[in-house]
Amino acid sequence: MRMSKKFDAFVTWASGIKVPINKKILDQMAAWSQGMNVKANRSALLSWRVLEVNSMFADRISDVPKSFIREILKVAISPNIISFAGGLPNRELFPVQELQTASNSVFEHSGQEALQYSNTEGYLPLREFISQRYKTIKGLNIEPKNILITTGSQQGLDLLGKTFLNEKDRVIIEKPGYLGAIQLFSIYKARFSPVLLENDGVNIQELTVASKLRNTKLMYTVPNFQNPTGITYTNEKREQIANVLRGKPLMLIEDDPYGDLRYSGTHQSSFMHYLPEQTILLGSFSKTVVPSFRTGWIVAPDEIMEKLIVAKQASDLHTNFFTQKLLAEYLQQNDLNEHISKIKTMYGRQCLAMIECIKRHFPKEVTYTLPEGGMFLWVTLPYGISAMDLFQKAIEKDVAFVPGDPFYTDLKESVSTLRLNFSCVDEATIEKGIARLGESINEYITEYKQKNLTV
Amino acid sequence: MRMSKKFDAFVTWASGIKVPINKKILDQMAAWSQGMNVKANRSALLSWRVLEVNSMFADRISDVPKSFIREILKVAISPNIISFAGGLPNRELFPVQELQTASNSVFEHSGQEALQYSNTEGYLPLREFISQRYKTIKGLNIEPKNILITTGSQQGLDLLGKTFLNEKDRVIIEKPGYLGAIQLFSIYKARFSPVLLENDGVNIQELTVASKLRNTKLMYTVPNFQNPTGITYTNEKREQIANVLRGKPLMLIEDDPYGDLRYSGTHQSSFMHYLPEQTILLGSFSKTVVPSFRTGWIVAPDEIMEKLIVAKQASDLHTNFFTQKLLAEYLQQNDLNEHISKIKTMYGRQCLAMIECIKRHFPKEVTYTLPEGGMFLWVTLPYGISAMDLFQKAIEKDVAFVPGDPFYTDLKESVSTLRLNFSCVDEATIEKGIARLGESINEYITEYKQKNLTV
Repeated sequence: MRMSKKFDAFVTWASGIKVPINKKILDQMAAWSQGMNVKANRSALLSWRVLEVNSMFADRISDVPKSFIREILKVAISPNIISFAGGLPNRELFPVQELQTASNSVFEHSGQEALQYSNTEGYLPLREFISQRYKTIKGLNIEPKNILITTGSQQGLDLLGKTFLNEKDRVIIEKPGYLGAIQLFSIYKARFSPVLLENDGVNIQELTVASKLRNTKLMYTVPNFQNPTGITYTNEKREQIANVLRGKPLMLIEDDPYGDLRYSGTHQSSFMHYLPEQTILLGSFSKTVVPSFRTGWIVAPDEIMEKLIVAKQASDLHTNFFTQKLLAEYLQQNDLNEHISKIKTMYGRQCLAMIECIKRHFPKEVTYTLPEGGMFLWVTLPYGISAMDLFQKAIEKDVAFVPGDPFYTDLKESVSTLRLNFSCVDEATIEKGIARLGESINEYITEYKQKNLTV
Repeated sequence: MRMSKKFDAFVTWASGIKVPINKKILDQMAAWSQGMNVKANRSALLSWRVLEVNSMFADRISDVPKSFIREILKVAISPNIISFAGGLPNRELFPVQELQTASNSVFEHSGQEALQYSNTEGYLPLREFISQRYKTIKGLNIEPKNILITTGSQQGLDLLGKTFLNEKDRVIIEKPGYLGAIQLFSIYKARFSPVLLENDGVNIQELTVASKLRNTKLMYTVPNFQNPTGITYTNEKREQIANVLRGKPLMLIEDDPYGDLRYSGTHQSSFMHYLPEQTILLGSFSKTVVPSFRTGWIVAPDEIMEKLIVAKQASDLHTNFFTQKLLAEYLQQNDLNEHISKIKTMYGRQCLAMIECIKRHFPKEVTYTLPEGGMFLWVTLPYGISAMDLFQKAIEKDVAFVPGDPFYTDLKESVSTLRLNFSCVDEATIEKGIARLGESINEYITEYKQKNLTV
């Protein structure tokens, strides 16, 4: 494509009309337009490339929300800041020595094998362990052949997106819902049907309407100690949900990374009990052993498993085999339940401490969830106060949290909800941080009331 | 949805017309139809589910070719069979002890950190090592910020698919080309423009035509010791290719897992030298250190990197961080070039042995490539003999290879080409296996000639 010296580029408008322009105008345009299809003259300045490359990207990637939490964490990284913003397990509890011992066993007994390529499905003894645990802990009869090891349960979501979603298919999602799922389903250009999450699970009326919408393929839930709210679905609600979905051409994804971390209340049954034919389970060792190994799994029926394996093979051939063997060795040498009970003791204490501090330091108009497990608690501010605005104020007092905004798929204005993490902060720090946050909220409310009285 | 007792299901035809049918007819239909949109009565037999679930799958997943090699390897797994079918590095060369030492260092010096969640971009010291190596070995000035660690270079392909491909966008691919890339791009519903691979690189005329087709977003190449052919692009051909692609709105992917494994001839320059603005590099430690860690990388300019990071985060948050640290530690404690030279010595000897054996045992009508590195060699049979048919005969003589068929995207009938792997077989076994394969070919040709004389 050659252009006259006078013009530096063509701009192709949506109408299909091509207009030759010069660099000055193009630079101006670059400031206010991003998605425009501009084919610039290659001999022009390098800074133009941004525009040209943008025109090459797939539509899907422009639609994906940037990780808000990632941006927030950048702010919250300063050592003075007490952060309730993260979502990490507490590293003090990682079984470092036990994993080192297991690692040495693997190197010594099957080094070459553990370092070679392996099968896509995952290491059989690890899948057998998971299968056995479903049987003994949850009374679920799940065979190893129905378990696929994934690179974290986040990859489980990616494989389900690959396997089920055509462009514009619908996904039912909790409102508020897990950010990683929102990002992933956006990649597959899904349309979301957000369904209000109440204290005992999603709202049944809204679910009933959503489940009837055309091309609804998946419902995504985190029924135990949900991220971001900490809410757990009751058995009654699970049964009602199953009744709504039964027989409809869609699958329910039960993502359960925190299920083992219950420190109060009573165990609620998996959707697999209520809706066996339509339930897909996601699991993970990230919260019970360590996250850096990126080892999770999907449970799915045979005919879906077949497709997931094809998707998995194209995505990364197989999950890190060395750490699969290491994990299997660790699980054989140690008692996972014993280890989990240590985690539950610590998180349970920290959760309780946070609730006690909230009671003391937050004004009584603030409401919050009472998690029976997991790592998160959800706060609702009164008077429609913006959590984003509060975040700015809180940062000035050296305390951070995640404003609720990124957990909604249908946001029009900023919300009054926020997420607090308690797994990574000791009790003394919780006391200090919640006191600071309480101050911020109190000041905000005082300002709000003054402003509203004045007006 | 309730149905009368008389009928067990509705069949929805493409026309939109719904027809109630009974189980017997449905079973019959199941035999010849797969993609049909059948909403069966849930109270009907379980065996129906296959049909129902099939109607839920994304279009993309039905279009993906099953891994042919996977199926082949199942046949080739018997201990009596000499297999040239695999694509594995030789496990005898894995630095087991050195990696164990590095692993213990990581556990002892930064256990908790190495086991925690980490950043999406990858471990900085590892990216610095890769950057440094590009500078010293290839004269390429690549900054760590332009390197993203991926879960094997196969994931690099997935992220590029996510970032660039809308449905029906075109991808230029070598003919024959890497199967993993064909599978992956099929997932994103790309249309392929296969371009004939000659002894010095792809055919320029065909490339010129393909590069002008609308919505061509990517060209995928393995320019060094290609999989499956073992062919290396000459510098002259690389320059010609760069001239064809320069200024066109597409990116060239240079996938280079074998580039370090050159055991004869002279180093050819990366496309980054000829087409810097449009080249994306993929690299991997799978062939130089170990494959089970699934550690590869993408090199891309800033504005693309930004999108790739979003795609990566949605796909698996980050690559196994423990083995990233382990690898970085290993690379600091050991001399990678020294280790690579051991691999080159062994593979070089095995490649030579295979060529010598081919000369002795194959009829002279058979042609083959002369790889200067890598792990594969490509054989062309005379008279249009089917490599698939030969495979059946060869298996009877306990020797296996991969028929060329799955490496083509535009196949109408079976091909006369086949891939031989020499990295995993010692010289004595090569002699034995190639002798058996030679016998099979000779018998086949004799039969062929008799048949054609008779007719």
